[in-house]
Parts: sequence; C-alpha cells; structure tokens
Amino acid sequence: MEKIKACIVGATGYAGQELYRILYSHPYVDIIKVTSVSYTGKKYSDIYQNLNNISELDCTNEDMETLANLADVIFVALPHGIASKNVTKSVLDKCKVIDLGADFRIKDKNVYEEWYKVEHFGEDALKEAVYGLCEIHYDEIKKARLVANPGCYTTCSILSLYPLVKEGLIDVNSIVIDAKSGVTGAGRKADVGTLYCECNESIKAYKVASHRHTPEIEQELSYAAGKEIKLIFTPHLTPMNRGILATCYAKLSGDYDYDKLRRAYLKYYQDKKYIRLLKEGLFPETNKVKASEYIDIGFTIDKRTNTVIVIGAIDNLVKGAAGQAVQNMNLMFGYDETTALDFAPVYVA
Amino acid sequence: MEKIKACIVGATGYAGQELYRILYSHPYVDIIKVTSVSYTGKKYSDIYQNLNNISELDCTNEDMETLANLADVIFVALPHGIASKNVTKSVLDKCKVIDLGADFRIKDKNVYEEWYKVEHFGEDALKEAVYGLCEIHYDEIKKARLVANPGCYTTCSILSLYPLVKEGLIDVNSIVIDAKSGVTGAGRKADVGTLYCECNESIKAYKVASHRHTPEIEQELSYAAGKEIKLIFTPHLTPMNRGILATCYAKLSGDYDYDKLRRAYLKYYQDKKYIRLLKEGLFPETNKVKASEYIDIGFTIDKRTNTVIVIGAIDNLVKGAAGQAVQNMNLMFGYDETTALDFAPVYVA
Amino acid sequence: MEKIKACIVGATGYAGQELYRILYSHPYVDIIKVTSVSYTGKKYSDIYQNLNNISELDCTNEDMETLANLADVIFVALPHGIASKNVTKSVLDKCKVIDLGADFRIKDKNVYEEWYKVEHFGEDALKEAVYGLCEIHYDEIKKARLVANPGCYTTCSILSLYPLVKEGLIDVNSIVIDAKSGVTGAGRKADVGTLYCECNESIKAYKVASHRHTPEIEQELSYAAGKEIKLIFTPHLTPMNRGILATCYAKLSGDYDYDKLRRAYLKYYQDKKYIRLLKEGLFPETNKVKASEYIDIGFTIDKRTNTVIVIGAIDNLVKGAAGQAVQNMNLMFGYDETTALDFAPVYVA
Amino acid sequence: MEKIKACIVGATGYAGQELYRILYSHPYVDIIKVTSVSYTGKKYSDIYQNLNNISELDCTNEDMETLANLADVIFVALPHGIASKNVTKSVLDKCKVIDLGADFRIKDKNVYEEWYKVEHFGEDALKEAVYGLCEIHYDEIKKARLVANPGCYTTCSILSLYPLVKEGLIDVNSIVIDAKSGVTGAGRKADVGTLYCECNESIKAYKVASHRHTPEIEQELSYAAGKEIKLIFTPHLTPMNRGILATCYAKLSGDYDYDKLRRAYLKYYQDKKYIRLLKEGLFPETNKVKASEYIDIGFTIDKRTNTVIVIGAIDNLVKGAAGQAVQNMNLMFGYDETTALDFAPVYVA
Repeated sequence: MEKIKACIVGATGYAGQELYRILYSHPYVDIIKVTSVSYTGKKYSDIYQNLNNISELDCTNEDMETLANLADVIFVALPHGIASKNVTKSVLDKCKVIDLGADFRIKDKNVYEEWYKVEHFGEDALKEAVYGLCEIHYDEIKKARLVANPGCYTTCSILSLYPLVKEGLIDVNSIVIDAKSGVTGAGRKADVGTLYCECNESIKAYKVASHRHTPEIEQELSYAAGKEIKLIFTPHLTPMNRGILATCYAKLSGDYDYDKLRRAYLKYYQDKKYIRLLKEGLFPETNKVKASEYIDIGFTIDKRTNTVIVIGAIDNLVKGAAGQAVQNMNLMFGYDETTALDFAPVYVA
Repeated sequence: MEKIKACIVGATGYAGQELYRILYSHPYVDIIKVTSVSYTGKKYSDIYQNLNNISELDCTNEDMETLANLADVIFVALPHGIASKNVTKSVLDKCKVIDLGADFRIKDKNVYEEWYKVEHFGEDALKEAVYGLCEIHYDEIKKARLVANPGCYTTCSILSLYPLVKEGLIDVNSIVIDAKSGVTGAGRKADVGTLYCECNESIKAYKVASHRHTPEIEQELSYAAGKEIKLIFTPHLTPMNRGILATCYAKLSGDYDYDKLRRAYLKYYQDKKYIRLLKEGLFPETNKVKASEYIDIGFTIDKRTNTVIVIGAIDNLVKGAAGQAVQNMNLMFGYDETTALDFAPVYVA
Repeated sequence: MEKIKACIVGATGYAGQELYRILYSHPYVDIIKVTSVSYTGKKYSDIYQNLNNISELDCTNEDMETLANLADVIFVALPHGIASKNVTKSVLDKCKVIDLGADFRIKDKNVYEEWYKVEHFGEDALKEAVYGLCEIHYDEIKKARLVANPGCYTTCSILSLYPLVKEGLIDVNSIVIDAKSGVTGAGRKADVGTLYCECNESIKAYKVASHRHTPEIEQELSYAAGKEIKLIFTPHLTPMNRGILATCYAKLSGDYDYDKLRRAYLKYYQDKKYIRLLKEGLFPETNKVKASEYIDIGFTIDKRTNTVIVIGAIDNLVKGAAGQAVQNMNLMFGYDETTALDFAPVYVA
Repeated sequence: MEKIKACIVGATGYAGQELYRILYSHPYVDIIKVTSVSYTGKKYSDIYQNLNNISELDCTNEDMETLANLADVIFVALPHGIASKNVTKSVLDKCKVIDLGADFRIKDKNVYEEWYKVEHFGEDALKEAVYGLCEIHYDEIKKARLVANPGCYTTCSILSLYPLVKEGLIDVNSIVIDAKSGVTGAGRKADVGTLYCECNESIKAYKVASHRHTPEIEQELSYAAGKEIKLIFTPHLTPMNRGILATCYAKLSGDYDYDKLRRAYLKYYQDKKYIRLLKEGLFPETNKVKASEYIDIGFTIDKRTNTVIVIGAIDNLVKGAAGQAVQNMNLMFGYDETTALDFAPVYVA
C-alpha cells in the first residue's frame, strides 16, 4: 500500500513524541515534518534522544497552510486556543486533521469559551469536527476531515460510564469521578510544580471542581443520556509517569445486580478490541495497560448504598492521546483500526 | 520527671518501628522491650538498620501478662484478632495499653466480627476501650486505661468530615470517600503484590466496597450525626512510601457558602495544634505532612452540583498510627500533648 | 513464511513475560506452551493481566523432552542449576534452545561451579553452547543449536568495553565496573528485600565483590584481550523498574585522545543497528532505551588521571534478556535480525 | 540558656528549608530572618507549606551587613560566587557565618576560579574560613568565625576514604569515586532536566570528569595524605528525593586484611557519634540514614584485585548540608554537638 504523509505540529511535547514513536511502527505512514516553536532548527532526536538513529528530522516551523499542501494528515498537539485559529476550511480542503488539543472537542462554543477563557475562532471547523472517541463515534470518524481527539481523563471517564448512562442504569445527578493521573499529563514545561522532588512521594488533587475536562465528559455523557448532566470530576496528580485511573461513583437508578450491569457493558463493548471488561472481582491497575491502546474496566455494586463503582484505566499518552489519534487516523484512512497499535502492554516498564 | 517504661508488642512492623523512632526522642519514656514472634532473639537494629547505634535491644517474645508486670504502658501493633485475646482486665489492672490494631475500635462486637471474620474474645476490655482520635475524644482518652488507636484511613477520613457531619451541613447518605494510601499501609510482609515492581508506576483501587475501615468511619461519623450513616469508602494503593489523601464528597444539606462551612471547621478545630485548615483555594498534598503529626484539610464547594469536596492528608505511619499512639500516651500520662511530636514535617523526604 | 513453534519454560518470571510480549508481535512465531512450576494450571493472563485478551494459554508443566517434540525453539528462563540437567543432547537433536539463565554462559565448568555453588550436569551441551551476545558472536549464533543468552549486567558491561579491550587501548588490570540496575533484575519472588517500601527512595550496592556476572564479563573480555582479565564489578539496586547503567573505568594504556577511542568503537559497532554510540559530550540514560533492544554508549577521557570513563545503558529485560533472546532466535532461524525488535524506545514510560 | 538569633540567607532552596526545619527544633536558636531574592515579600510558609503554622516569617531581602547587625549567626545558602563578595571582614566582626555554598571551601583561590569560572572576591575571608567537616576539623571549627560547610558529595566521599588515606593504606593514584545522588541535590529551579518525568525511572551520570566537588575532595584527601591527590569522581542522578551513596574504589598499598583496615576506621571514628561503621558484610543504603545526621560506612576487600571498596551513605540535605551546618553552629557556639540533631533516621519516608 502506498504510504501517506504525516506532519506532527507541536511535536516536542510528550504526546507529540509518543505519536512519533507509534507512527514509526506504522507500515503506511511517513512522517515528513515535526514542527515546534521553541525548538525550531534543532534535531528532533537531540530533544528526544530515545529517537536517536530513528528520526533524522529537524524541527521546523511552517504554518498549517504550508503543511496542508505537503501532507495527507496533520496531527496537531498544541496548547488550546491556537488550533481554532489555524485549522481552517482551507486547510481541511487539502488534508485531514487530527487535533489532540481541546479546541474542537466542545461543540458549544460558549461552553468552550467559558471554561477555556479564550475566544474560539473556528466555528465552521468546529461544526464539522467529529469527537474522536473511536469506540463511540466509529462511523462518523470514518467520514471525518477533522477529528477532535479526546482528552486523557475524558477518554477514561466516558468509556467507564457510557453503557450505564446510555442504558439509564444510574442516577445521572449522582456521578462522581475521582481520577488519578501520572505526571506526563502535566506536559514537559519547566515548572517548579512538576519538578521531580515536588511530585515524587506525594499525591494531591488539583483544579478541584474546575478542571476543563469536566464539560467534555458532561457533553458526551449528556448525549448518551439524552439529557443534560452535571457531574463532579476531581483530578489528582499521582507520582508515576503514565496512566490514568478513573474511579467513578453513581447511585443505581433501580435495584440492579452485577449481571444486569455487565450485560450493558457487553452490549456496547463486546466487539471493541481495545476495551477489556475485567472479570467480576477484578479491578484495573494502570501498569497493566502501559504503552498500549487498551482501556481496562472493572466494576462492583456496593449494595449497602446501592451505588455502582466503576474503575477504568488507560495509558494517558496512548489511548488518552497519541494512540487514539492513530486509531482515529486508521479509521479516517480506511486502514485496519489496529495498525501500529496491536501491541501487548509493556509490563513493569 | 521520672521516665515511664514502655513495651512495643509487634515491634517489627512499620508502625512498630516508627513508634520506636518517635519514642526515642521522648524525654519521659524508656523503651524496655520490643517483641516479635518472627524475629525473637534478633537484634532490633539488625532488622531496622536505621536504628543502628540507637537501639541496643533484642527482640523478645514475652506474653502480655509478663510485660504488664514490667511496663507502665504497652503499645500493641499486631494483626487483628490477637489483642482481643491478650489485652485482659488483668493486664489493664497493671498497666495502660494503646492498641494500634483494630480489635478495640469497633464498639459493636457483631459489626467487628462481621467485617473481620474472627471472634472477639475481649468484650469487657472492649467496653472500657476509648477510641483514640485525640482531637475528638480528648477528655475520655485522658482517663482511659485502654485506647484503641484509630486506623490510618479512618483518622484522615473522620477528621476531614467531622465538623460538617456534626453540624448537619451535609446529606449523610451521600458521602463518598475516595482515599489514596502509600504502600507502607500494606505492611512489611513478603508478598508478590507489594513487590517494588508490582506497585511502582501504578495506581489501583483495592478492597472496593469491602475495606474494614468502612465500619470504623461509619461508627464515628454516626456518633457525630446522631444517626446511622452508611457511606462509600474506596482505598487506592499509590506508588509512594507514606501518606494518605482522602478526597471526600457529600451533597450539602442546604444552600451554604464556603464561609459557613469554614466556621464549622473552626468551631471544632481552632485550638487543635495538629489540624491545619488550609486557606481557601489550597488543598493538601501528602508531602507537606510527612513524618509529622499534622493533618492538613482543605475544601471547596462545587456550586454546579451543590457538593462539598473536602480533602485531608496525613502521614499514615505518624498521625495515622505511631504518632497518634504517642499523642494518646501523652494524654493518658498527663504529659504535654505535643511531647516528642512537635517537629516540622520533613519536606522532599 | 510458515510460523515456528515456541515454548517458554519458566514463563512467569519477568523475563519470561517480556519474552511473551515481544514474541506476540513476531510475525513468524507461535507460542504454543508457557510452563511454570509454581503456577501450573493457572491461566497465564491471570498472572500477567496485561496479557488479558492477548494470551489464552494456561501454564503447563511438561518436561523439556516433551516440549522438544512439539516445538521448534524452547526459551528457558529458569534459576541456575536446572537447565544444565535438562537441556540434553537429546533435546538439542529435536529443537533449538535459547537459555536465558546462567548455566551455559561460563565455558569453564569449574569456574561456573565455584561461583554458582552447584554442580554442572551438562558438559556436552556446554561445549556446543554459543554465548549469545549478538553483536560479538553473530556468525556462531547463526549456526548454533544452543545459545546461552547473556546476563543483563554482562551485556551492558561487555559491549561498553569490548572495542577498547580488543584494540588494547586500556590497562586491563585497572577495570572497574560500577553498575546500577532497576529492581526487575531481582525477579518476581516474594521477598522482604524487594518490597516496594524497602527499595523505593533508596540505592545500595549488593553482592559487593562477589556477584556472579563477574566471571562472565571476565570470560568475554579475556577472549577479546587474548589474556586473562580480573576486574571489579559492583552492582547497585536502583529505585526504578527497568534499566541498567554501567559506569566503567579503566586507565588508558597510552596517551590516546577521544577520536582514537571513537574509531575503535566505530570499527566494531558501525554497522550494528542496536548499538548507538552517542555524540561526544553525551552520556546514556536508562530512560532513553526503555522497552527497546538498543544499547547506548558514551565515553570521555579524564586527562588528569589518563582514565577513560565509558557508560552504557540498556533495558535489562529487553537487550539484557528477552529482546536479546529474540535477536538470537532471529539469527538462528534466518530471520531478519530486527524482526519484532524494531521499535522505538518508549519514553517517559 | 539564652537563645541566639539566626538568619537564613537564600532560605527558599531545599537546603535553606531543611535548615529551617532543623533549627525549629533547636532549643537555643531563634530564626529571625529568612531572605530570598526571588520570593521577597512572600510568606515563607506559602512557599513551603509544610511549614504552615510553624513559620510566620515573610521572606525579606536585606544585605549581609544589615543582617550582621541583627544576628548572632548567618547561614548562607546561595549559588557560588555571591558569598565571596558579601561575607566580608566587617560582617565577620559582627557575627558568625556558616556558608553552605562553595565559595570558602577551596583554599586555593586559583583552583576555585578554574573550576567555578568566577572570580573570588573574598581572599581575606577565605584565609580564615574553616572547612566545616565536623569529624575532621572539630577543634578549628570551635574557634571559627567563618565555616565553609562541605558539599554533599564531598562529605560522603571524604569521610568514606579519610582513614585509609591518612594511614597510607591505599594507592592514592588509583581512587575512583562513583557517587549517586537523589534529585534534591539539583535544587529547586524550574528546569526541564529535573522535571518529574525526565528523572523518574532513570539513572544517568552527569558532569562526567568535570564536577566541581572533585577539587574539594582532592583538597581534603591531599591534606590527609600529605601529598597531592588526583582522583576520579563521577556523580549520578538517581530517581529518589534524598540520599547520596558513594562507592569508592582504591588499590591497597600493601597486602592488608579487613581487620587492619577496620582498625584504621576505628582509630579516627570510634568516638564520632554520627559516623556508623557497619558490621563486616554489611553495606549502607541511603534509606537507612534519611532525615538524619548519620553517615553509614561499610567496606570490603576484593582479594582478586587487591582493591578496597568502601561505600558511604548520607542524607544529602542533612549531613550533606543543613544538618552539618547546625552541627557546625553547635560547635561554634559551645552547644552540645548533637543539639537538634539527635534523631533517629526516618525509615520508609
């Protein structure tokens, strides 16, 4: 099969680097450009020395239009507020775009602007953007020109709760999501708060009741519920590199047992390769999905309080970012969904 | 002041060791015996080499009666089910006992036996035991002969929620406690599950909807509420040595603001040296209380869902075990509550 | 190409698991058996839940003869002293064997028995065994029936020093190797010494002046030197899952400069895909080779003492064990050396 | 006893903070000022929240002269090159100074300027400065007005080798020191290289053959030897917060046995409280000295190469910085050497 040409815009963040790593193993993709504002002119493998002898590219700084003329697909991994300006109709007429940032995830421009505190400049593009949660929006993704790759917390949270919400099995006003993330989630910016010694041997909540993934989770679960949902989402910074664990709580909407809930999960996930519903009594651990596209999900019912506790685990840089971006690309270009993703999780890594 | 004589029964667990470390700095205490079934005859500082040149004791294996004849106070740090047999009236007639295990924490023998799956043999002792949460049961502890030192998760959870429950500010049927613990909480037993590589770089929930600290938290919060409470408690194993973070959620029982809740906390905690109520907008991190007796508490209200999120942090081996045991001892013997405990948390340790 | 059939004997250790993971991506290999004495009858993916939905095998306990009748290649990952009994001529007549243990690495039976304190039962097999350091013994490996896969420390140490020794550039009586290993190197046995809390936040040397990889390094470097070498090797347990860093010191045998030494490295390694000689001034870090087959090597000369300092880094479970075993298999079966190994190191994993 | 007044200049680094923590428990010291260029005006406990309710001070920015008028002792914890300008005769006439930086450690101004690449402005002060390695320069420290507190690596390295060098038991031209440090050694500056994810799960050497602690170690060991020593010192960044392990190698100068070397250590260290010479066969681990003033030392002889391997371990922030500064202060002011330092190491912290 002929190879397609890919660019990574904002390649020097952790997600961009992970994307490079995964695409390096993709039989049908050539990475032709890695761009970076901060590292323009530097050799990419000097920044990420793990890519020594693997990447010979230098970082460049072309604009999106120029890249669109060269590429079949552009992956955008930029801070929010930039893509909405640059991913224009004109760009989309020339090539497909997968945005790993937040700009095209929230369908309601006002909600986006309220949570992100910046103006949204790309209303047209926003309209056609497809929310790239592969297991939920599979068919739309296949036809999309612009995919909004979901956030890491949101991927884990939505997939953990989706079947229960969709089937009306929980009281959607009672949802609490207590999520724990590894420190790669905070990015690679020099900052006292993410220094080794400040994060090591400690756990803390942050952006309590104010994290921007909240409206994204609410949007997707509201679609599933067919009504508006407000929920509580608390992220925690955990002393590990990778991984998200989302511990989700909700009151059951009736007197259901484990099997009834399990059937709901199977209904939606039975044929989804990268969703692993664990056996009863087992719960996910982040080290069991590391460097892989899998999400592990386990749940139980606390009969004393008629509450379901669902726990999901992903690798935030793979299923929560770069891996899902490749999964989206595979769908958009008609490749097998698992191409370059069909690897066993790396244990004790 | 004349020194009292102390024994540590079960001295070779992490809590026992921490107790030794703290008591070593106590001006009024001589540790005369450290006992251990597994390490009888071994030099204590050969097991814990940090105590080299500090402890000259060998591990012995006397029974409680013998120790009671020698000691003024016995600290018991044993697996559950043993203390209830051995801490008899006869022992208590001779010396004071502080039990770091679970046997005397649950007032209702039936509840204990249901959760712990062992018979309770010490109903008389159970009756006189005082629950040693110093900031709540201060006056009773001063008069006690037998103190049940609270669990680590429970100390953190109860102190985080107590004022809100006591003042009726939350819907007690809506409480969710999502707690994260360092691995010392799992003890020092050789076990594949707590090997370095199995815990490192991973987080997981365990004993979901079934952890034994649940009834202990419920007991104390039910007392505070004046009615029976059932709540959800989920512990998580976190890749760090020490520390507990309890993220607590509850619907408010009315339309309250931050200041109203803050006043409730101040009402009960204003004069409590080891409770630090953080400034609005700040939340605890476990590394800020390490190796110290402090509990840090911060909270906010999520107005979108009328839910309060309270977060508490302690060092599980100090305020959650050995330190609180010493605080209890100080109260029981009339010493200043802060003796041997008045140290600043060790940062970046 | 038709697939070959592979067995993993001792599949439940970390190296065995890693082997499974890598072979899962090998296009020409079917894993037909995973054996384990301790876990016979258990589902393999219940022990290693990262392999859930990936492996459907149960652990079995056939002997080597039985496996040899079924398989084209057997990977042996057992404690020392067992393979030397079981990898017989009869087994080797039926299938190829790659032994990840120590039994066939030391050519001199007496040296083996002195360091390993067990009798060696397989002198015949020992004679035909090829030391499987792919970059050094490439041609012999291609023809071998039995390959002794090198140790993790030894792979890193030998490759770091080989060109300097071979070219006579260092005083071979002055070699000091100070090596640091992640905790996976200690295996997956329940043991107090490798509990999370005992290893975390600490570094220590162990088996000082007595580690069994010493004679293995000496053997290979002695071959290279053409004379007997005794050297100092000190392993350290480092608080991380994976990785070996070997910091090697040796007095130069003459007044050489950086370029002269570099030419020696290039002479032997220029065409070796998995050896990356870093640019002058750069030194390896273990996180740059994680989950990959690469060894990174950097060096400098301390002119004040006329000493060369060479530093090598590998992933102990990949290039130091399972990956090199697959590299050996590729050579033995005529596959491209890089099959199932051509992946970029996983960064921040 | 009346309290003395202390200032900490550069209080917002990790060493400054640790100094505050230790002095908080000192019965004869009042900390009256904490200064910081970057955080002037900020509450100290807002920067180090572990000191919440413990310190009420705000960071100020007075110059050294002003502080000298107010204080009995000034602790200086600044980057190199600043103290040499500001710690003048005039300052020393008013109060005692303990400099935790490098400016007064190297007696030869030229050597200092060569390694540190800055001019030294305080030649007079340099002349009277005493190198504050308490166990070696005890008597001079007692009389000093200006003490140069030793570096962390140097404290560990010098104390590990001192008796062997002093007694002429090793070939001083063969010394190799391979040292491993926790990340607090790199300070608290925002920097990509010390981000959590960049350091975690990795070990690397840095400043190979060029680290500035080299001439400091050489100076003190040269004094001990009575002749000039050049040695090799290689620091490594290790994924842990605290701790230094120095693995030291040297050829023996004769055919000595373990006991002969042990007698040398005892000769110099027998009565030194904070030096713990481990039993034969035991070697230090950094977690056994955490948050304490102790240095643990163990050694063995590799008879095959007639080399001694000595290993030392300290807490880099305590014995390697703030603790030793307090030990120095105790000596300078006539307090018991152990005041505020007599605590057991905090295990599993």
